[in-house]
Amino acid sequence: MFEHTHQLRVRYAETDQMAYVYYGNYAQYYEVGRVEAMRSLGLSYAKMEAEWGVMMPVMKMEIEFLRPAFYDELLTMVTTIPQIPGREIVFESSIYNEKNKLVNKGKITLCFVNINTKKRVDVPEQLLEKMKAYYV
Amino acid sequence: MFEHTHQLRVRYAETDQMAYVYYGNYAQYYEVGRVEAMRSLGLSYAKMEAEWGVMMPVMKMEIEFLRPAFYDELLTMVTTIPQIPGREIVFESSIYNEKNKLVNKGKITLCFVNINTKKRVDVPEQLLEKMKAYYV
Amino acid sequence: MFEHTHQLRVRYAETDQMAYVYYGNYAQYYEVGRVEAMRSLGLSYAKMEAEWGVMMPVMKMEIEFLRPAFYDELLTMVTTIPQIPGREIVFESSIYNEKNKLVNKGKITLCFVNINTKKRVDVPEQLLEKMKAYYV
Amino acid sequence: MFEHTHQLRVRYAETDQMAYVYYGNYAQYYEVGRVEAMRSLGLSYAKMEAEWGVMMPVMKMEIEFLRPAFYDELLTMVTTIPQIPGREIVFESSIYNEKNKLVNKGKITLCFVNINTKKRVDVPEQLLEKMKAYYV
Repeated sequence: MFEHTHQLRVRYAETDQMAYVYYGNYAQYYEVGRVEAMRSLGLSYAKMEAEWGVMMPVMKMEIEFLRPAFYDELLTMVTTIPQIPGREIVFESSIYNEKNKLVNKGKITLCFVNINTKKRVDVPEQLLEKMKAYYV
Repeated sequence: MFEHTHQLRVRYAETDQMAYVYYGNYAQYYEVGRVEAMRSLGLSYAKMEAEWGVMMPVMKMEIEFLRPAFYDELLTMVTTIPQIPGREIVFESSIYNEKNKLVNKGKITLCFVNINTKKRVDVPEQLLEKMKAYYV
Repeated sequence: MFEHTHQLRVRYAETDQMAYVYYGNYAQYYEVGRVEAMRSLGLSYAKMEAEWGVMMPVMKMEIEFLRPAFYDELLTMVTTIPQIPGREIVFESSIYNEKNKLVNKGKITLCFVNINTKKRVDVPEQLLEKMKAYYV
Repeated sequence: MFEHTHQLRVRYAETDQMAYVYYGNYAQYYEVGRVEAMRSLGLSYAKMEAEWGVMMPVMKMEIEFLRPAFYDELLTMVTTIPQIPGREIVFESSIYNEKNKLVNKGKITLCFVNINTKKRVDVPEQLLEKMKAYYV
């Protein structure tokens, strides 16, 4: 199964007055995890929009929060794509703190949309090709 | 069952280059919905932290995205508390656009934590009292 | 001179671990102030982009922070346009807390850009017309 | 003079419907630049708050925006401290895009505040010591 690891440091702006990372900010972290996972496959999400005319809106997000993350922590995000994508693509992300404790984990489902028609399309061939190697 | 309606206008900052409200920003909208729902019950979340010493971190968030929301739309958010809170409190929120179409809906589970000990506590009595009237 | 007042409540997401509104979030508040100021003139910034094909990127921002704003405060934002716009438009905003103390004040200079050509253009006639009444 | 360079990639969340990085988000970038500049000096802003009991609220921010930054660009941020800090500390930051063109530049003035008394204090000795070497 495809798996990618990326590190990210908590910004001051991302904390709230509980001194926790605000729960809504993890969606951004997951986005970074997804994009870097794709980049590691040789795929640029920016090019996907600009050159292939395909964008990937989120359809579903589920996050379970186990413990807070704090300012300036260097978080480790593990992103996997548990099954080969079709009409949808699912990313699962787990975020660990510096003590290697699980901060939270999320499952994000996205679809593929033609940027011009705004209609749903299948997973782009180029993305599918890159993924196939991981799901023999 | 307790239900509260609040309106909120999409800020430019909240859009992304798809021209959609960025999916991660809805967590903020839901937060506003919860806080205004509590205020309508005569409860201030700010006072809850400052005077009762209780904070409410999010334990779980599930959001289903049905259609995008756009810049400057006046969204209507309906927030309910489907069951009487105990160790946890669940809020369900539905966001509608100006055409009264469902944009997305989410279920957020929070717990109660003593601000000083950082230990979980039961739902504060004052909150429970306010809620009881709705769940006879 | 044209002046508009708008109120806005601080969200939890907008605080940081100092328990202050994060300094970077005021740019969003100022944006809301500008947009509501224009709406009060019968001008929709959303339509300006969608129908007139003119967007207004920010060229310069200066903010002086006098005291912090806190979670759940209902802030009052006074937005003025000190001179009649030409190639640029200047907005001055002052934000007051519930005790009517000045939280901060900012001066934001924007220009007008054709959405398609990305070239700078003069202030749209319709906007200029609305403004003239205030600067006889 | 002390100067530090840090790179940072634009997140999707940080774009707006103009497809530009939203102007308000640069304050976060500048924050990251300041914190990494201090880290390069062997100073942790997190520890400064937690161990020295000193926080650094922003008093003044001036940004001049020259050109937009776009999604996924790897920006280079150069942060300097133009003079030795006293009651205030000034950071100047310049952000360059991948073509080495200046995106914007900002000047941020911060002060030092005792976390408990909330009163202004002088620059902490440890920070001053680290800086002295650069301003003989």
